[in-house]
Amino acid sequence: MDIEEFRCRGKEMVDYICSYLSNVDQKRVTPKVEPGYLRNLLPEEAPQDPEDWENIMRDVDDKIMPGITHWQHRRFHAYFPSGNSFPSILADMLSDAIGCIGFSWAASPSCTELETIVVDWLAKAIGLPKHFITSHQESAGGGVIQGSASECILVSMLAARNRAINYLKKFNPNTEDSAFLPKLVGYCSKEAHSCVEKAAKILLVNLRILDPDEHCALRGEKLRKAMEEDENDGLLPFFVSTTLGTTSSCSFDNLLEIGPLCREKSCTWLHVDGAYGGNALILPELKYLLKGMEYADSFNINANKWLLVNFDCSCLWVKSRKQLTHALVVDPLYLQHANAEETIDYRHWGIPLSRRFRALKLWFVIRKYGLTGLQSYIRNHIRLAKYFESLVLKDNRFEVVNNVKLGLVCFRIRASDTVNQNLLAIINASGKLHMIPSMVKGKYIIRFCVTNEHAKVEDIDQAWSIIEKHASRLIDMKDIIIQPPTLRRRSRRFSFTRSVSKEMFKRIPANQIFTMELLLYWWPIRMMIMKKPIKIIF
Amino acid sequence: MDIEEFRCRGKEMVDYICSYLSNVDQKRVTPKVEPGYLRNLLPEEAPQDPEDWENIMRDVDDKIMPGITHWQHRRFHAYFPSGNSFPSILADMLSDAIGCIGFSWAASPSCTELETIVVDWLAKAIGLPKHFITSHQESAGGGVIQGSASECILVSMLAARNRAINYLKKFNPNTEDSAFLPKLVGYCSKEAHSCVEKAAKILLVNLRILDPDEHCALRGEKLRKAMEEDENDGLLPFFVSTTLGTTSSCSFDNLLEIGPLCREKSCTWLHVDGAYGGNALILPELKYLLKGMEYADSFNINANKWLLVNFDCSCLWVKSRKQLTHALVVDPLYLQHANAEETIDYRHWGIPLSRRFRALKLWFVIRKYGLTGLQSYIRNHIRLAKYFESLVLKDNRFEVVNNVKLGLVCFRIRASDTVNQNLLAIINASGKLHMIPSMVKGKYIIRFCVTNEHAKVEDIDQAWSIIEKHASRLIDMKDIIIQPPTLRRRSRRFSFTRSVSKEMFKRIPANQIFTMELLLYWWPIRMMIMKKPIKIIF
Repeated sequence: MDIEEFRCRGKEMVDYICSYLSNVDQKRVTPKVEPGYLRNLLPEEAPQDPEDWENIMRDVDDKIMPGITHWQHRRFHAYFPSGNSFPSILADMLSDAIGCIGFSWAASPSCTELETIVVDWLAKAIGLPKHFITSHQESAGGGVIQGSASECILVSMLAARNRAINYLKKFNPNTEDSAFLPKLVGYCSKEAHSCVEKAAKILLVNLRILDPDEHCALRGEKLRKAMEEDENDGLLPFFVSTTLGTTSSCSFDNLLEIGPLCREKSCTWLHVDGAYGGNALILPELKYLLKGMEYADSFNINANKWLLVNFDCSCLWVKSRKQLTHALVVDPLYLQHANAEETIDYRHWGIPLSRRFRALKLWFVIRKYGLTGLQSYIRNHIRLAKYFESLVLKDNRFEVVNNVKLGLVCFRIRASDTVNQNLLAIINASGKLHMIPSMVKGKYIIRFCVTNEHAKVEDIDQAWSIIEKHASRLIDMKDIIIQPPTLRRRSRRFSFTRSVSKEMFKRIPANQIFTMELLLYWWPIRMMIMKKPIKIIF
Repeated sequence: MDIEEFRCRGKEMVDYICSYLSNVDQKRVTPKVEPGYLRNLLPEEAPQDPEDWENIMRDVDDKIMPGITHWQHRRFHAYFPSGNSFPSILADMLSDAIGCIGFSWAASPSCTELETIVVDWLAKAIGLPKHFITSHQESAGGGVIQGSASECILVSMLAARNRAINYLKKFNPNTEDSAFLPKLVGYCSKEAHSCVEKAAKILLVNLRILDPDEHCALRGEKLRKAMEEDENDGLLPFFVSTTLGTTSSCSFDNLLEIGPLCREKSCTWLHVDGAYGGNALILPELKYLLKGMEYADSFNINANKWLLVNFDCSCLWVKSRKQLTHALVVDPLYLQHANAEETIDYRHWGIPLSRRFRALKLWFVIRKYGLTGLQSYIRNHIRLAKYFESLVLKDNRFEVVNNVKLGLVCFRIRASDTVNQNLLAIINASGKLHMIPSMVKGKYIIRFCVTNEHAKVEDIDQAWSIIEKHASRLIDMKDIIIQPPTLRRRSRRFSFTRSVSKEMFKRIPANQIFTMELLLYWWPIRMMIMKKPIKIIF
């Protein structure tokens, strides 16, 4: 393909993308294919001779597209959002064309420097402590883009392990590094992402998985007790992984309780995983969730989840870049360069040597949307999640199981796990809506996440009507007995969202929902504002 | 940016890319910027409000481009090629637009299935043993795309560590896993990529870095001796990392000697790293380099190095997918799905959970070029490297330090390391040509790698003329004494390439160079073919 054919095919591809994204909502959201479907459609061996472009694109339409789960579909409510936006796609095109590999400063200076600058931008927009900002004169830390949250957590745990081993080595200088491993213990909550367990498996350290409280949050007291037990057994608590916005239920660990506990220990690294929830911290009204971040040694967000940047783009900040790189540096001559002393070589900040020019997409997106644009986008998702919650709560047959702070609602029919499994299975099989399950507080729940960039109230209505219709049919068909709702303390939480109408919802400014809900906790103020008693449904 | 603005900006970006790639050769290949240059040009904080697209693109031109090392420049001869081609860029555009995250089969079936199919295609094109081919009925192994060779080696070593620990556990079932680490020892050559050392550092296993032979190849005898010493010390040799095409000098470890050694041990995993060289195995005339591959437990190539696929695209094949995934599986409910039993969930094959639709670019490239197209591309690089070698060898002041089998030539002025350092420094500072150094056989050398997709004999001539001019000036200016050439056995190797003229070079079919060179080793045949004695320069 020469440059003129690319000029033509490239523009055709732009049109193809426009057409795909305009029409994706007309397709099934999940594909109707059986495992192995594609093997039957493609030849067993690679073609010897070049093929026509038309053939390849025909196969994209006929063979690839029917097997795609459409993450950008308006009815895709599974997992978390997969970041995607036009400025991000454009930046990736440019990054691909430049095709530089930024493992060191010299390998492409602007690739490294832009990365430092944009992660600093983000750190400031979030309001992270100064020690995370590379350019801050008092900072010994900084930020980097990694390929995934799994890598962020792995390298943070690795740096913590390295630091802990060095600490123990002071007392036993002649012991082999690996001999200290049985002494090290890390902690996370049951609600932490599975990659924490994976990292511990790779790094061969002990990991204690602790029970969270009734709001799915890891609390200080639970951790303190575990740490003390372990210390009494001669172990060294070396790492605590906390989460701001867990995968199962978007719960928030209590950093304000956990942080000081880590600080008072001799050598405990506190990591904060904000893969999804961390992105929302660019909202002024959510800054309260940052409380305790000053204790963190490292923090990550996936801009490719909720900042409209295409995968991969996980930002990791560390308090001490020396501690991170010390655990990862190997330095052969062919990678050394004249400016190594005064520059950042990001290859020492992660596992892969080679790196794409990923900063470009973060930079394009931040500039094209502006922080206000990104804030509106996230606010809209939160507002719609609250709206979905209100719809669920209006239906007696359902319950909401999580405290809806961001874009995720965990709900279930008030019936057995099997009923909920069946409900999810028939909805997913319909191809009209896609959600996934999880376990919250020992119950099988269905996760509904707002994911589409341009999601609207009407989308939520339509999603709920699909869910409601399938649920009604299932309940009728199987004569399912709905358990009565229990009037618990936490149900007061939902009094606001439960009581407002769709029209009222649309009128409330997105950034006011939290404030209003907060006020409503306190009855007298609630009375003053609403001027009439709240309608209590249960 | 709405869909219509994207349609317009996308097409502009296509034109921008065409213009960049048409004109990149007019630019300096390395930028003339000082560390920190970009920080002075960009604001300290992210913009609050959206910016115009024109502003962003103006900044790309004025601020980003001046700091780029142009890897796609015709005078870029550093590192290894950074894969880049139009079909690959087009596939990435589509992958970005689809924006699916393929961690499990269900998360996007075609994303997983196409990956399995195209890595099978490649395995067959290379001629890998059947146990590496997922679809082969007798195979328990298969292939996967990873983000980098570093990850391929890390996960292979991890699987090996896991297998070795399980093996040792049979004899000591009550011992903690980490307690076995001091017993495990891995091996590689001094010439192995630095990521082997990095992996050992992460996995906290012992690594013995062995001296290669005079051709920079790791040999069986050296390994056997090391293994025996370690076994006598009570250690378990659990992993051997070999390389086909090392970074420093593109040397090849001796698999035929090393393979049987690993096989006869109770639990030694053999990894073959073909990050660069492995790609060339799609050439029929290079299949002899595959000898011994049947002993390998895992093998990787970076299609993003030398198969015209954009970074990232490292293909890894393992003999036992169970052994690989066993070391990596953690399986929360929110990632489980109905077809998990009968499908591949690639999240268990590597470190990150999330994964881009990378198979698309490999598929586009293989189809648009055909295997013959990819073979011609690689052959051309090899031919040009041989041609560059012939130019160096014709100049008495220089020597070639490696055995030029693929696209890399390691050369130096016959003078001190300092002289060569100076030479490289002034060439790189000129911005006219970019190469990097390495150490081969204890000497500082300059690496010249053919990297451009459309590289021609004229490019090599021009590169050599830049090198030669700078060298002459340096030698004259500093009155440098050139060491006399030593007529060693290995210089016979170069007799063919040294003796042919440029015109003759252009006439030889690219795939015949090896055959001819091979024949020429044997004097009588050499006489018969050339019909006259070879011109001996030294």
